Amino acid sequence: MAPVPTISTDAVDVPVALLGYGTVGAAVHRLLVENAEDIERATGHRLRVVKALVRDPQRARKWLPDPTILTTDFAEIRDDPSIAIVAEVMGGIEPTGTYMRELFAAGKPVVTANKQLLAQRGGDMFGAAKAAGVQLRFEASVCAAIPVIKVLRESLIVTNVRRVLGIVNGTTNFMLTNMEGGADYAGALAEAQRLGYAEADPTEDVGGGDAAAKMAILASVAFGCRITLADVDFQGITEVTQAHVAAARELQMVVRLVGSATLVGSSYDVRVRPSLVDRQHPLAAVDGAFNAVMLQGDAIREIMLEGPGAGGIETASAVVADMVAIMGTHGTGFLQNDSTWRTLQKLPAGELPSPFYVHIEVDDRPGVLARIAERFAAHEVSVSRLIQTPIDSGAAMHVVLHEAPEGRVLRSLADIAELPETRSRPMALPVVSDRGVSGLGWS
Amino acid sequence: MAPVPTISTDAVDVPVALLGYGTVGAAVHRLLVENAEDIERATGHRLRVVKALVRDPQRARKWLPDPTILTTDFAEIRDDPSIAIVAEVMGGIEPTGTYMRELFAAGKPVVTANKQLLAQRGGDMFGAAKAAGVQLRFEASVCAAIPVIKVLRESLIVTNVRRVLGIVNGTTNFMLTNMEGGADYAGALAEAQRLGYAEADPTEDVGGGDAAAKMAILASVAFGCRITLADVDFQGITEVTQAHVAAARELQMVVRLVGSATLVGSSYDVRVRPSLVDRQHPLAAVDGAFNAVMLQGDAIREIMLEGPGAGGIETASAVVADMVAIMGTHGTGFLQNDSTWRTLQKLPAGELPSPFYVHIEVDDRPGVLARIAERFAAHEVSVSRLIQTPIDSGAAMHVVLHEAPEGRVLRSLADIAELPETRSRPMALPVVSDRGVSGLGWS
Repeated sequence: MAPVPTISTDAVDVPVALLGYGTVGAAVHRLLVENAEDIERATGHRLRVVKALVRDPQRARKWLPDPTILTTDFAEIRDDPSIAIVAEVMGGIEPTGTYMRELFAAGKPVVTANKQLLAQRGGDMFGAAKAAGVQLRFEASVCAAIPVIKVLRESLIVTNVRRVLGIVNGTTNFMLTNMEGGADYAGALAEAQRLGYAEADPTEDVGGGDAAAKMAILASVAFGCRITLADVDFQGITEVTQAHVAAARELQMVVRLVGSATLVGSSYDVRVRPSLVDRQHPLAAVDGAFNAVMLQGDAIREIMLEGPGAGGIETASAVVADMVAIMGTHGTGFLQNDSTWRTLQKLPAGELPSPFYVHIEVDDRPGVLARIAERFAAHEVSVSRLIQTPIDSGAAMHVVLHEAPEGRVLRSLADIAELPETRSRPMALPVVSDRGVSGLGWS
Repeated sequence: MAPVPTISTDAVDVPVALLGYGTVGAAVHRLLVENAEDIERATGHRLRVVKALVRDPQRARKWLPDPTILTTDFAEIRDDPSIAIVAEVMGGIEPTGTYMRELFAAGKPVVTANKQLLAQRGGDMFGAAKAAGVQLRFEASVCAAIPVIKVLRESLIVTNVRRVLGIVNGTTNFMLTNMEGGADYAGALAEAQRLGYAEADPTEDVGGGDAAAKMAILASVAFGCRITLADVDFQGITEVTQAHVAAARELQMVVRLVGSATLVGSSYDVRVRPSLVDRQHPLAAVDGAFNAVMLQGDAIREIMLEGPGAGGIETASAVVADMVAIMGTHGTGFLQNDSTWRTLQKLPAGELPSPFYVHIEVDDRPGVLARIAERFAAHEVSVSRLIQTPIDSGAAMHVVLHEAPEGRVLRSLADIAELPETRSRPMALPVVSDRGVSGLGWS
C-alpha cells in the first residue's frame, strides 16, 4: 500500500492538474483563478493549475491564460510529486480508468465528473483509491452543481435513506415540459437540439442511459451497496406521445422521466421510467432543463434538492468544491470516498409495487369495460380512477391503478392485449404521488 | 490562546456531552446510540454521550437509557478533559452564551441548534471559537435537517451567492396553506396550535422573529458579513387576511411568508415579508409545515433545498451530522465556523426594488381609478396588472406593480390613502416571481 499522501498545510500554493481541458476543464481553471481569494480564505491555500492533459494542444480553447500548462503526456502529471490533486474532466472509460488507477498508486487524490466510469467501474475505482489511501470525490458526476452526494454522505449520515426519487436528466425534462406546451416528440427533440440541450445523437439522454448511470451512483451512496449501470432497469422517453401528456393533464398530473431507487427489505430496486407525477408532488414543479432529487429517510422524512443539473460552469463549481473539500478533510473513510459496505440483492423483476397509469385503446363495444376490469381483477389489480374519451369509432381508457407489483400489472395488461376489442398493446407508466414519512415512529 | 484541541484519531470511543436534554437532546442521544455503527463506519469513532446538563434530573424524559449521565453542574462538562465535543440544545441567550464561551476556552468544539443566540450574539460566539482555535458548527440552527449551511459554505464556495430566498418558518407556512383552503387567520392559528406547530404564545412565529433570526444567519454565511437580528427588517403574517389570499389566487399566486437576503452592489438587504409568490415559482409549491431555501448565485444560477424545517428528530439529525463533521475535518477556517470576512453597509430603508401587490379599497365613484393611477405615476411607479372586484357599494382594487424601490411604492400609497375615496390604508406585499440567472456571462 502506498503511503497516505500528505498535503502540506504550511504551503499556501498547492499545484493541481487537470485531465482534459474542454468546457468543464477550462471552467474549473477559470473558477480557481477568479475565486482564488475565496478559496484561500476558506482553506489557507491557493489551488494553482500547473498541468492539463489534452490530445491536441493546438486546438482553440475557450479560456487558456497560459498555454504552457497543456501536455499530451500523462506521465508528466502522474510523476510530478508536487501535484497534490488531480481533477478528471476528460470523460470516457479508457484510458481514463487506467489513468485514475495510476494516479491513486502515485498517492494523488482525484476529483471526477465521470458518471459512466463510476456507474460501470465504480468498484474498481473506489477499491484502487482505498487501497492507495487517497480520496476519490465525485460530486460533479451526478446533477452538476446540485450537492446531492455531499448531502447524502455527510448531512444524512444518521438517516437511513430508503428511497431516492429523481429527475436527473435535463434534456428529457426540457423535452417533456415542451410537450406539455403542445409540441410533439420530434418537435421537442428538435428544439432541445437547437438550444444545445440534446446531442446530435440523443440516444444517451432520450434512451434513459444517462439517468440510469446517475441513479446507479446515487443508489450506491444512499444504500451503502455497490449498484452498477447493469443493475438499473431503464426506459427512456422515446415512446412517450402527446396522448400520454394529454391524459396526464386530464388526471392532474405531468409526465416526467423519473429515476427511483428503493430499499425493499434487504433488496434494492433501481429504475428509470417515464412516469406520471401528481401535480401536488414537488417533482411535478421541476420544469425545463432543471434537475431535482428527493431523498426520503427515517429521520428527515424527505429533503428535495433542485437546480441546474448540467452545464460547464455548474459542473466545474462542483469539481472545485470537491478539490477544496480534499484540502479540509483527512482520511479516506466513508465521508471521503463512496460508502459501500454491504451487499444487497436486486429485487426480482416485477416485484416493486407502485401505482400505475395505463392507457388502453379499444373498440367501443358493449361490455368491453367489464371484460377489462375482469382481467385486472384476475391478477388482483384494482382500479383507482378511470377516464374514458372517444377516439375514432372507439375509446381511449385512461386508468389509474392502485399500488400493485409491476409484474401483476404487466400480466394483466398482456391478458387485456389479447381481448379482441383491444387495438394496441397497452403501456403502463408508474405514478408518483407519495410523500416521505418518518419511519422512526418516535418524535 | 488555548491550545488547538486534538481529538485522538486512535481512540474508537469519543466521549461527548449535551447541554440540555429536552426533545432535541434526547433525540440526539438516541440517534447516536441507534446509528453508532453507521457513524463508526464513516469516521472510525463511536460518539458516546457521557454527560447531559439539565435543570431538573428528576423530570420525566422521553428517552433516557442511563439516568446517571444527567448533571446540574456545568463544570462537570467543562472541566472533563475526556469530553471531545459538546452539543448545545438547551436554547436561550443566557446562561447558554457564557457556557459556550467557557467550553471554547476549555478547547471543546461546540455544535449548536440555537438560532437566536447566533442571530443576536453570533459575533461574540464565533469570535470566541476562533480565538480558542475550536470549531463552532450550527447547521441545526436554520431549517433543521435541510443542510443549507453546509451547502452554502462547502458546495458553493466558488459561487458568489447574491440572493437567498426562503420560506423558513413552518408554522406560518402551515397557516397560510390552511388559509388557501378557506380558513381564516384565527382558525388557521387554532389548527396550528392544535397540531403542535404553534406555541400557546405564537408571537415568535407569526410575528416573523423566528424567520428573521434564520435569515440573519443565512445572510451572514452567504455574504461573508456579520448580519444580526437587528439588521433584519421583518413583518409577520398577523395582518394577512382571506382577502389577500383570495386576491393572490385570482392573480395565479399564493401568499407566503418569504425571507429575502439580497446583495445590491456593496450593500445588503435582509427582510421578512408576507409576499405574493407566482404559482410558477418553485417556492409556491412549498406546502404545509415544510421549509425551502433558494440560493441564487453566479456559477449555479439557482439551487433550492426543501424539507421539514422543524421537529425534534430532524433537528437532532443535523446536530449529529455536525458532530460527525468535526471528527472528519481539521482547522477552524471558513469551512468550519462562520464565514464573515468583510463589512457591508445595510441598504437604506426603502431602496430595495421589488414588484409589489397592492390592495386598495375605494368608494366606486367616477374617476377614482384615474386619480389612483395619477398618484402612482407621480412617484414613477407603474402598474403591471389590475383586477377590480365589487365590494359593498365600492370596489377592491388588486394591483400588481412593476419593480420599483419600496420607498417610492409606500410614498405613492400614502398619497392614495389621502384620497377621499380611499377607505383604509392600503397594504403593499412584495411579489416573488423572478428566477436566478447566471451572472458570469460565460459558459
